[in-house]
Amino acid sequence: MALSCPTAKEVLSGNIRAVARACRLIDDADPRARDLLRELYPHTGRALTIGLTGNPGSGKSSIVDCLIAHYREQNKSVAVIAVDPSSPYTGGAILGDRIRMQRHTLDKEVFIRSVATRGHMGGLSLSTGEIVHVVDAAGYDVIILETVGVGQDEVEIVSMAQITCVVTVPGLGDDIQAIKAGLMEIADIFVVNKSDKEGAHRLVQHIKGMLHLKTHVPDSWEPPVIETIAVPPKESGIGTFAGTIASYFEWATDTHTLISKRKAYEEQHLFDLLKAKVESELRNRIPKADLEQTIAAIAQRVTNPYDEVEKLFKLL
Amino acid sequence: MALSCPTAKEVLSGNIRAVARACRLIDDADPRARDLLRELYPHTGRALTIGLTGNPGSGKSSIVDCLIAHYREQNKSVAVIAVDPSSPYTGGAILGDRIRMQRHTLDKEVFIRSVATRGHMGGLSLSTGEIVHVVDAAGYDVIILETVGVGQDEVEIVSMAQITCVVTVPGLGDDIQAIKAGLMEIADIFVVNKSDKEGAHRLVQHIKGMLHLKTHVPDSWEPPVIETIAVPPKESGIGTFAGTIASYFEWATDTHTLISKRKAYEEQHLFDLLKAKVESELRNRIPKADLEQTIAAIAQRVTNPYDEVEKLFKLL
Repeated sequence: MALSCPTAKEVLSGNIRAVARACRLIDDADPRARDLLRELYPHTGRALTIGLTGNPGSGKSSIVDCLIAHYREQNKSVAVIAVDPSSPYTGGAILGDRIRMQRHTLDKEVFIRSVATRGHMGGLSLSTGEIVHVVDAAGYDVIILETVGVGQDEVEIVSMAQITCVVTVPGLGDDIQAIKAGLMEIADIFVVNKSDKEGAHRLVQHIKGMLHLKTHVPDSWEPPVIETIAVPPKESGIGTFAGTIASYFEWATDTHTLISKRKAYEEQHLFDLLKAKVESELRNRIPKADLEQTIAAIAQRVTNPYDEVEKLFKLL
Repeated sequence: MALSCPTAKEVLSGNIRAVARACRLIDDADPRARDLLRELYPHTGRALTIGLTGNPGSGKSSIVDCLIAHYREQNKSVAVIAVDPSSPYTGGAILGDRIRMQRHTLDKEVFIRSVATRGHMGGLSLSTGEIVHVVDAAGYDVIILETVGVGQDEVEIVSMAQITCVVTVPGLGDDIQAIKAGLMEIADIFVVNKSDKEGAHRLVQHIKGMLHLKTHVPDSWEPPVIETIAVPPKESGIGTFAGTIASYFEWATDTHTLISKRKAYEEQHLFDLLKAKVESELRNRIPKADLEQTIAAIAQRVTNPYDEVEKLFKLL
């Protein structure tokens, strides 16, 4: 049964079922999604987008839960896009995480969506970006992009947000492992969660020490290290965290950092779209049997992929 | 100072410095790498390639270390390609991991290479695949591809190996978290490392239980769950693990699974190469100022990426 495509008007009015259907079409790489996105595009770019990444087990979802509550108190609507590795066993979502956000499921101003990581032609970052466009156009004030911060893909995804927050916790073993190399460069804010656990203070000092090694650029943003406890009733630090996010947005607007980030994202997005189009065009143009023959010849080392790619390129 | 490009002959003779230079050129996306790879290509496809992935802290590097020792005893040469998130802080490698393999650094038949995850135009899996081609052409008998198994990119990388082994350990918290959803489908062998730790038996049972949920396909490979301790002198299970890898290769050869995997990889590789070429061609053809203008217009919502991508496509 084909899913009906919502109209742009339905999405723009914030109709939650239309938003969910649009996300589903993007997940399914349905060609109708492209036309919808084209119509929605002029209405995007208004939401505050927050990227949150960190080790599995660092309590990211609990922090997201607290952030939702914080923004809801300010009467802001919130969309959460959670990027989870998909699995036929669990049906695409890690159950535990979703359960932690359950207190918001009845709130109509909160939209929570898991993005599956199964094979998208244009890559996961492309489809996640499009889902962000949809919820942005639907009028959500705050969009939280949550990923497991280890893979390069996840790092790219979280970088499409306007601010990147890296969450970690004490007790994950080596401090070197706790803050994965690669996350250091992209963090605008560090959060040390479960700050009442042993080793929290040492971890904060360790991160500050690593930040200290970084060459200081005048007028640049110095990533603060925030300590949080994200489990009620001991909840603490969330207000400070949200306040620091707000300060970042002020700084990033004043310094035109947000505009630069936006442009970098648009450039990436443009080429991602183009590459997805090139692949689908070629797969349409080349008879399946011909492609299989080429692949077999490469596998048998009768030819090589470098010469074959030149031939494919000429077909464009 | 420009790095000199090794000749194909030098690489094929197994000259370790030529191999290292070739890897470096690939890392740097040097155009000379392409010509070298074209020459090396007919000489690839002979090595046994083993993919090893798993949670940070699961002891992957210790297992790799034990596997190296095992294959060296059989007089086989071994190349290890470790995919680590890069960082300006650590210089691209997680020190701890490399230290664990130090006992093999003086062995000329062992080649260990870290692949940085910093921005490659064709994506990380493309450059990692090319490094595999180089060490394969250089004549290494066994190639071990090691990644941190959380991101989609890493899953793709490990899938380019002929066999995928997923390593986990007891005590990582939720069992659901321990075996990341998404890794269940790609594992040919599960390894429960640190099997003397509390909870190891329960974890083994848990994995077997999850495997049991999977629809049984006749004549398919049933992923075994192997228990290991990878730290001498308590070392155990490594022989069983290597024996199971050998059994898998026998099964996969007989059932033509290896050939199918090879073709799937070649197809992916071909399109990855093509997409990288499309991007670099377009970036050469379009004046930088024009591209910047387009990006700015998209960022200001004067136009949209979907219409712009059609224009770019026509330029090809």
